[in-house]
Amino acid sequence: MSEKGFNLKFAAMESIRKAAILTIGDELMIGQIVDTNSAWISAYLDSQGWLVARKMGVPDQVDEIIEGMQLCLASADLLIMTGGLGPTNDDLTVDALCQFFNCEKVWHEETWQRFVEILQRFNREPTDAYKSQCYQPEAAEILPNKHGSAPGTLFRRDNKIVVSLPGVPNEMKYILEHQVMPRVPKGDAGQHRVIRTAGEGETILAEKIKDIEDALPPEIKLAYLPNFSKVTLRLSARGTQHRDALDHYEAQIKARLGHLVYGTGDVSLSQSIGTILRERGETLGTAESCTGGYIAHRITSVPGSSEYYLGSVIPYAYELKTALLDISSETLYAHGAVSEHVILQMATHAREKLGASWVVATSGIAGPGGATPHKPVGTIWIACAGPKKTKTRLLKLTRDRHSNIEYASVAALVLLRQMLLEEA
Amino acid sequence: MSEKGFNLKFAAMESIRKAAILTIGDELMIGQIVDTNSAWISAYLDSQGWLVARKMGVPDQVDEIIEGMQLCLASADLLIMTGGLGPTNDDLTVDALCQFFNCEKVWHEETWQRFVEILQRFNREPTDAYKSQCYQPEAAEILPNKHGSAPGTLFRRDNKIVVSLPGVPNEMKYILEHQVMPRVPKGDAGQHRVIRTAGEGETILAEKIKDIEDALPPEIKLAYLPNFSKVTLRLSARGTQHRDALDHYEAQIKARLGHLVYGTGDVSLSQSIGTILRERGETLGTAESCTGGYIAHRITSVPGSSEYYLGSVIPYAYELKTALLDISSETLYAHGAVSEHVILQMATHAREKLGASWVVATSGIAGPGGATPHKPVGTIWIACAGPKKTKTRLLKLTRDRHSNIEYASVAALVLLRQMLLEEA
Repeated sequence: MSEKGFNLKFAAMESIRKAAILTIGDELMIGQIVDTNSAWISAYLDSQGWLVARKMGVPDQVDEIIEGMQLCLASADLLIMTGGLGPTNDDLTVDALCQFFNCEKVWHEETWQRFVEILQRFNREPTDAYKSQCYQPEAAEILPNKHGSAPGTLFRRDNKIVVSLPGVPNEMKYILEHQVMPRVPKGDAGQHRVIRTAGEGETILAEKIKDIEDALPPEIKLAYLPNFSKVTLRLSARGTQHRDALDHYEAQIKARLGHLVYGTGDVSLSQSIGTILRERGETLGTAESCTGGYIAHRITSVPGSSEYYLGSVIPYAYELKTALLDISSETLYAHGAVSEHVILQMATHAREKLGASWVVATSGIAGPGGATPHKPVGTIWIACAGPKKTKTRLLKLTRDRHSNIEYASVAALVLLRQMLLEEA
Repeated sequence: MSEKGFNLKFAAMESIRKAAILTIGDELMIGQIVDTNSAWISAYLDSQGWLVARKMGVPDQVDEIIEGMQLCLASADLLIMTGGLGPTNDDLTVDALCQFFNCEKVWHEETWQRFVEILQRFNREPTDAYKSQCYQPEAAEILPNKHGSAPGTLFRRDNKIVVSLPGVPNEMKYILEHQVMPRVPKGDAGQHRVIRTAGEGETILAEKIKDIEDALPPEIKLAYLPNFSKVTLRLSARGTQHRDALDHYEAQIKARLGHLVYGTGDVSLSQSIGTILRERGETLGTAESCTGGYIAHRITSVPGSSEYYLGSVIPYAYELKTALLDISSETLYAHGAVSEHVILQMATHAREKLGASWVVATSGIAGPGGATPHKPVGTIWIACAGPKKTKTRLLKLTRDRHSNIEYASVAALVLLRQMLLEEA
């Protein structure tokens, strides 16, 4: 991933507060699960003025955990540890904490009461397996866990803070936000402006805004994050004093990129389309073949999408293209299902059938099978039918099935958005 | 996540080969992206007999990268580094490598030719930005990158191997599999048996196989990985000598759990259903309301699904339930769209319309909006119509929109699979 001019210059930022993250668990070390916790923790700490200067992952083993703690604390004043707090023999974080802080495990009655309460809800008997989780390090401040059983713990030593949290994401997030953060000082929060674009690659975008990027002051950094045919631009600085400058450059870039910008902040492409449709009181439908429902899924993932999304027809099988969308069998026979003639009929017929203001349609060969001499894998037609006209695009993709479906879905939504803006 | 009895006992495994992973990039440190690379690398190395003993993440900064390398090599004989090889000023991995291995950057003509070749494909001129990526550490063995521009590099020192790879996943994977692995010794590969179940929670499963789990020899570990209403069980050992034992316990667990097991190894629930349908020459269709195409997407994500998946109707809007699936407006008026009466008609009518052997249908309130006094968010009806009968289930979920859609989709596929087995 290219990160043009994006460098937090950690060394030059001694003023800011440094944190470290230590993730614990064999399942992480053998790649059984992807660690999504540390990305969330990093972004959250950044918003609270703590910059993560180091991340470590270690197995469920006391000496490895302790060494990890030492190495993390060597470059940070706040250490967030996750994992290894479960009921089983391989959950050793509490033992490691006791050894590191030279204290005993002591019975914590509130934790036990919490277990009893949860188990009663499921009409289950508290067993010894649960009791083992009620012994906590004597040196710790216990952080209650509203969303689960195992509590978090907080330790203070040499002006540094060590926090141990469960690995379960929603439990970890709750304790960090509501129990940990009120107990630690805040620093200069990272200030970010996120500009979301679709329709052009990062090279074209970079050329369009080259002069703006070259004129950025050193304290403001610009990052490009490409994802298929979408590119997210992120302006970053640290400290509220840069807010006006960030606003200024964000406005400049948005003005320059114009219609390529579909939103700012956390908005998704589907959300931005939904906003336009809702404002205009227009409706949307889909007719998917090769994308097999993925576009509908993206649209309906947005809360409130039922206000403008009517529904979809997915004529995956050849025969259903005629049965569900009245595609003429002559057209199908003459040009094949993956053709401009068929995609045109799919979009326009679906628009009538669904009674929608707009319809996007896809028909192609996602692969790995299904290719013909004249239509290789990745040959995908997309179309968008609106009140005034219908447009088609031919995609020639070269990726695997998953990526082809993903890319075609984005391309269809981009086409829809462009037409929405043209016909405004 | 509970990891019953799952402990690789790293300390006790001095015999096996230890690796470390160092991920480089500011974007990882501020949580801008989730690191999926290291999970893949860990699992791949495990399959090659290399156990990842330590993971580290550091920002784009030479001294941090070098310290990360030192700390990783302190506990590993193979270090895999990813990231920081891009064209921009903040990509400093090559500089760090040169400093660590005390060598110069030298021009690498093959890399330049690779750039020229790629750029010509896109009719673009090679600029100096690309030239900067052609200087490689003199001490390195250059590993060609078939899927991208920046090559990997491999260094040998004190019987240890250090490898630097691009952060782009498919480039990283190609170089690691085809360029790195042939150059490093292999160890005792991790031996795993993965048993995939759906339909019961981990507590029930654990009770069902308690005696088998208690009888496991110490060198064989069992892990539970729950994900919504699916639970993956994983038996692990190290070294080929445990293969027979793993086969034995896998067979025992599969026999005990019976129909709850939908597959072993990498198979997905959608794949396992596809296999049954293909064998029987039967077909499948879907009629989704609240899941909005997500079930269709899961099914069509499987290569070759067009052999048995016919298509779907998504009557998201109230009116379309009548227009597309002839749901009687009386039924809709009397019972509402989220009712057993309507889900029954959706499944049976869609089965006729699509001409499919089987149809799964969903109708519910995914949330956050749309609740009524008698139908709270999470009230979701699912149904499955087959050749002999139609079954319905009422789900009362309590999660967010995304999770409700995910959970309902799995529940619908589980119901389909159960009926497929019953009507075998």
